[in-house]
Amino acid sequence: MKETPVRIPHILSMADLSREDIEFIFQTTDRFREVGGRPIKKVPALRGKTVINLFFENSTRTRTSFEIAGKRLSADVINITKSSSSVSKGESLLDTVKNLEAMAPDVLVVRHPAAGAAQTITRMLKARVINAGDGAHEHPTQALLDLLTIRDHKKTLSGLHVGIVGDIAHSRVARSNILGLQRFGSKVTVIGPKSLIPLGIEAFGVGVSYDFKAVIGDLDIIMMLRIQGERHDRLPFPNLREYSRFFGLNLQLLQKAKSDVVIMHPGPVNRGVEIAPEVADAPYSLILNQVKNGVAVRMALLYLLSGTEE
Amino acid sequence: MKETPVRIPHILSMADLSREDIEFIFQTTDRFREVGGRPIKKVPALRGKTVINLFFENSTRTRTSFEIAGKRLSADVINITKSSSSVSKGESLLDTVKNLEAMAPDVLVVRHPAAGAAQTITRMLKARVINAGDGAHEHPTQALLDLLTIRDHKKTLSGLHVGIVGDIAHSRVARSNILGLQRFGSKVTVIGPKSLIPLGIEAFGVGVSYDFKAVIGDLDIIMMLRIQGERHDRLPFPNLREYSRFFGLNLQLLQKAKSDVVIMHPGPVNRGVEIAPEVADAPYSLILNQVKNGVAVRMALLYLLSGTEE
Amino acid sequence: MKETPVRIPHILSMADLSREDIEFIFQTTDRFREVGGRPIKKVPALRGKTVINLFFENSTRTRTSFEIAGKRLSADVINITKSSSSVSKGESLLDTVKNLEAMAPDVLVVRHPAAGAAQTITRMLKARVINAGDGAHEHPTQALLDLLTIRDHKKTLSGLHVGIVGDIAHSRVARSNILGLQRFGSKVTVIGPKSLIPLGIEAFGVGVSYDFKAVIGDLDIIMMLRIQGERHDRLPFPNLREYSRFFGLNLQLLQKAKSDVVIMHPGPVNRGVEIAPEVADAPYSLILNQVKNGVAVRMALLYLLSGTEE
Repeated sequence: MKETPVRIPHILSMADLSREDIEFIFQTTDRFREVGGRPIKKVPALRGKTVINLFFENSTRTRTSFEIAGKRLSADVINITKSSSSVSKGESLLDTVKNLEAMAPDVLVVRHPAAGAAQTITRMLKARVINAGDGAHEHPTQALLDLLTIRDHKKTLSGLHVGIVGDIAHSRVARSNILGLQRFGSKVTVIGPKSLIPLGIEAFGVGVSYDFKAVIGDLDIIMMLRIQGERHDRLPFPNLREYSRFFGLNLQLLQKAKSDVVIMHPGPVNRGVEIAPEVADAPYSLILNQVKNGVAVRMALLYLLSGTEE
Repeated sequence: MKETPVRIPHILSMADLSREDIEFIFQTTDRFREVGGRPIKKVPALRGKTVINLFFENSTRTRTSFEIAGKRLSADVINITKSSSSVSKGESLLDTVKNLEAMAPDVLVVRHPAAGAAQTITRMLKARVINAGDGAHEHPTQALLDLLTIRDHKKTLSGLHVGIVGDIAHSRVARSNILGLQRFGSKVTVIGPKSLIPLGIEAFGVGVSYDFKAVIGDLDIIMMLRIQGERHDRLPFPNLREYSRFFGLNLQLLQKAKSDVVIMHPGPVNRGVEIAPEVADAPYSLILNQVKNGVAVRMALLYLLSGTEE
Repeated sequence: MKETPVRIPHILSMADLSREDIEFIFQTTDRFREVGGRPIKKVPALRGKTVINLFFENSTRTRTSFEIAGKRLSADVINITKSSSSVSKGESLLDTVKNLEAMAPDVLVVRHPAAGAAQTITRMLKARVINAGDGAHEHPTQALLDLLTIRDHKKTLSGLHVGIVGDIAHSRVARSNILGLQRFGSKVTVIGPKSLIPLGIEAFGVGVSYDFKAVIGDLDIIMMLRIQGERHDRLPFPNLREYSRFFGLNLQLLQKAKSDVVIMHPGPVNRGVEIAPEVADAPYSLILNQVKNGVAVRMALLYLLSGTEE
């Protein structure tokens, strides 16, 4: 099944992945995505392989997605979360990872609050590493599943105009998607209040708008980002209602959009803050398609990094 | 093996289950209960199926019971607990569940503090749902394992007199057992201080007693409920010692009971509060039989909801 | 494969294990240690067996090691940690364990803060028990993997001089290693400040030194123990820097050691406190060999206690 050698030993950043890499990953994903629809959702590709989910930040969604992906490939999946980790005893990331390496895992899936953590880890071990989110830096598997979802619905990844709306400055999802979309020649406009848009981001080839209403009519895809309500005290705008009024997506605002626009959100959704419930649940909302594609993309990545033919 | 179609798509409430349904579940359980005694405790019935344990309240006992049941059926079992859940990020139950649904689970086992949560969830997804406790409402798998344990020891579920002792007002175990026992024509008397017995409960066809000592001699089965010691400040009686004196089961009080009475408790037990250690550990105590039957009943339910013949 | 009957039903203490027992465990380990290096790290020896990791104290390292060992043997592995346990509801250890027993586990791996907890548990159940650390008492699987690591590098376990440095008074690792090393006729010297060395420990046949510098030149193996930085307020010495100055192992001090000395540490390491980073990462440091051997030793123990030939 693996007719092309894997060029990339780790999945750390969308910056590492060429258009050809991404297309190859999607070809592999296409072969795995039907597994989730079978009565018996299991293939033996990773039997006898050990996948460790090492999460220094909680994430039901991403951890569960990787865990299901690994188990459907017949891997042994081990979950390690921050609360149960030696980190609370003050062990360094270096030592935690070296110790896991000594247990001979095949793939380490890592989420960590520090940008570059996954990259740093690759220098310490032989196992393959997948970055499941490193601070505000990157979240490449999210971008891959987002790109796949767009391709499913627009039949192309080129020539599109994608708006990413919200806290661009702190979003690894925005960053990874910008890199991925640009690979295919799509245009990205980042949209949000000035306080949430990094200064000089135009230099990376993206458009910038502080006026969602003015730009929405140009967009083929709208990616809403989550407002971190739990960090409410650090919100860089007066309050959530004010944010929602200008940058939340509701039915009224959506009337100005193209008739074939589609809506995406990496989740978890703050209903009534960045997105109205009626929009999140509408037929043009691809939020659940994203989640579904997430399992398939992660199966493909785990397989490409460590799978064997039997 | 599955000669009767499953009439019930979800296990939400004992109120949904007819006497025939319950008997059919027990027939299936009888085929699985010997698996736990084998040297190789594993059957392939749920290979390639995904069971998600979604627990918004902690429960070692119930979660472990479902996890072991699922694994012995060869299912992939995913545990999600509240602490690791997106709920802490403010995501709604609706979104949490819809996201899991997009990952194509076959069965969702749900414990939630809100009455009706499991029922609500079924409207949102295609997966089968098992209610593992929803607030003070129901805990049907506990009632099923309790009924099975009674049947094992009394060779019938009809014509018995069952006393349920403790915090009836807040007990989903009491509620589910009352519904189940009534299906088979057994009589239930609820016993406790007035503050713990709901007003008007007689309308549901149960007897009521505020005097354990007076009624114990009539009972074939005594089900002791756990006093929530951890909610001590909200105890609706002066103190635990006072409660224990009037409604705790000890050897002295047990002398007034029938010679073939059996004692049950859903656990975890508060030794010395609602039940004396000598009673909990006596031969007529079925507490560990309940736990053992729990794994078998849950295997049967998982199988009936999602299993396939290979 | 199992040509010798297992003499020991549980692994509770190094005091229970004869030299022959330990050698037999190592022979079994030798057969399993290559499994971790295979492309398919899985053998069917424990298929259909249930291993429960019951951890009342957190430990990423030990729990993960047992979990990987169990899964590579094809066992069903269930993790129960204190936070998710009924213990928080006030259930006794007795009841927790009896309830698990009713679910028919084959092996219970137990870590508990109370000395003797694992031993106590064996009186309550039929399942095999492995002590994964009981208070300041014993940690026999750590000692076994330490002995194996020494044997790998010194080709013998006899006639060596091993220094154990640190908080001897509260270390189950020290205690188990002393017992194990003495079985093979090696000499142990415990080293640390007076406040951390139990009075009268010489009666157990070990040497005592309060002066690391004076004794280091005699040692073949140096085992550094972790200083519990997280219990800083209870440190029985002025401060960590003071401790580190007299009992930390750094390159300068190491110049006084034998040329073929090897360094061990049970982890997690406090770099810069009890051990300098350059020492922890040096070729003569066996820290990661210990971790690697840990998985193999635990596979052997799980197999010896519950495995079957198929």
